[in-house]
Amino acid sequence: MEKIRRIGESARWADVLVYQGIARWVEVANDTSVGARAQLSQVFIQLDKTLQLVGSTRSQLLEVTIFLSDLTFVPILNELWDQWIDSNHPPIRACVQCGLQGNIMAEFVVHAAVGDG
Amino acid sequence: MEKIRRIGESARWADVLVYQGIARWVEVANDTSVGARAQLSQVFIQLDKTLQLVGSTRSQLLEVTIFLSDLTFVPILNELWDQWIDSNHPPIRACVQCGLQGNIMAEFVVHAAVGDG
Amino acid sequence: MEKIRRIGESARWADVLVYQGIARWVEVANDTSVGARAQLSQVFIQLDKTLQLVGSTRSQLLEVTIFLSDLTFVPILNELWDQWIDSNHPPIRACVQCGLQGNIMAEFVVHAAVGDG
Repeated sequence: MEKIRRIGESARWADVLVYQGIARWVEVANDTSVGARAQLSQVFIQLDKTLQLVGSTRSQLLEVTIFLSDLTFVPILNELWDQWIDSNHPPIRACVQCGLQGNIMAEFVVHAAVGDG
Repeated sequence: MEKIRRIGESARWADVLVYQGIARWVEVANDTSVGARAQLSQVFIQLDKTLQLVGSTRSQLLEVTIFLSDLTFVPILNELWDQWIDSNHPPIRACVQCGLQGNIMAEFVVHAAVGDG
Repeated sequence: MEKIRRIGESARWADVLVYQGIARWVEVANDTSVGARAQLSQVFIQLDKTLQLVGSTRSQLLEVTIFLSDLTFVPILNELWDQWIDSNHPPIRACVQCGLQGNIMAEFVVHAAVGDG
């Protein structure tokens, strides 16, 4: 069986896991003491770092599931998303409102293709 | 690396994305001005169209995650689901209640196997 | 196309589905008449059984999405999770609060690598 590759794992979870050419990870703002725009801005910056870490790019995103603590953040999300995404190679996207832990306002679950399998 | 295939992409997201023999997409009723039964009925009709579009069938569904705006829609969902699904080859299914955008009452995230990889 | 393998399927859904070396399933406590700790304890016992059934192990978990009916269960979840998980080979994990059916307090969606593809 192909090896499972984990990056930045703690005892509780892997920060990123790569298997069969697909990287999977959960992205939440590192600093959740701030508001929705600042949290979402952080998430997109962090996503770039994670993509680079795993050898992927924005154009290789497959699926992004976005859990927001409040749907009133959707216009901010869309504004930042539209600036960030590769509009010629976008992923599929689901976006729903859920209760999130602590002061988290956005939790992204991301699947992206990686070059090296 | 295998090519990522997108169908019906807008600048914001892909309608359907196929990678490594699995199609992924988010299905929401095209007309969300109607009630739960009518929205869910639309979703199942749309699912058939999307399956055909990607070269898949009901029997090749792998995983369906259903976000409902209200769990009181579950009996309607199950009634329509049971009529629609290939009961000899069903997918796994999760179903939870979340806040959904606008007047959306059901948001499906679907993974299905496709014949041509 | 590779065959889709289903285990324990009912007419409505597959209990477990294996495709391309990845098992997917939804785990909910068999007895939901009990409280959060008892439901979560059941889920972890059931997860071991399902992993064994599909020829996988805790160390091959890829992704666990946890829907809780109430985020106040997170400390209990984490306590049981930390005892159960292979802390050297953990999966990625997302955890959000949603409305769940009936008296369900925790619904897990699991992806795990299986040895035999």
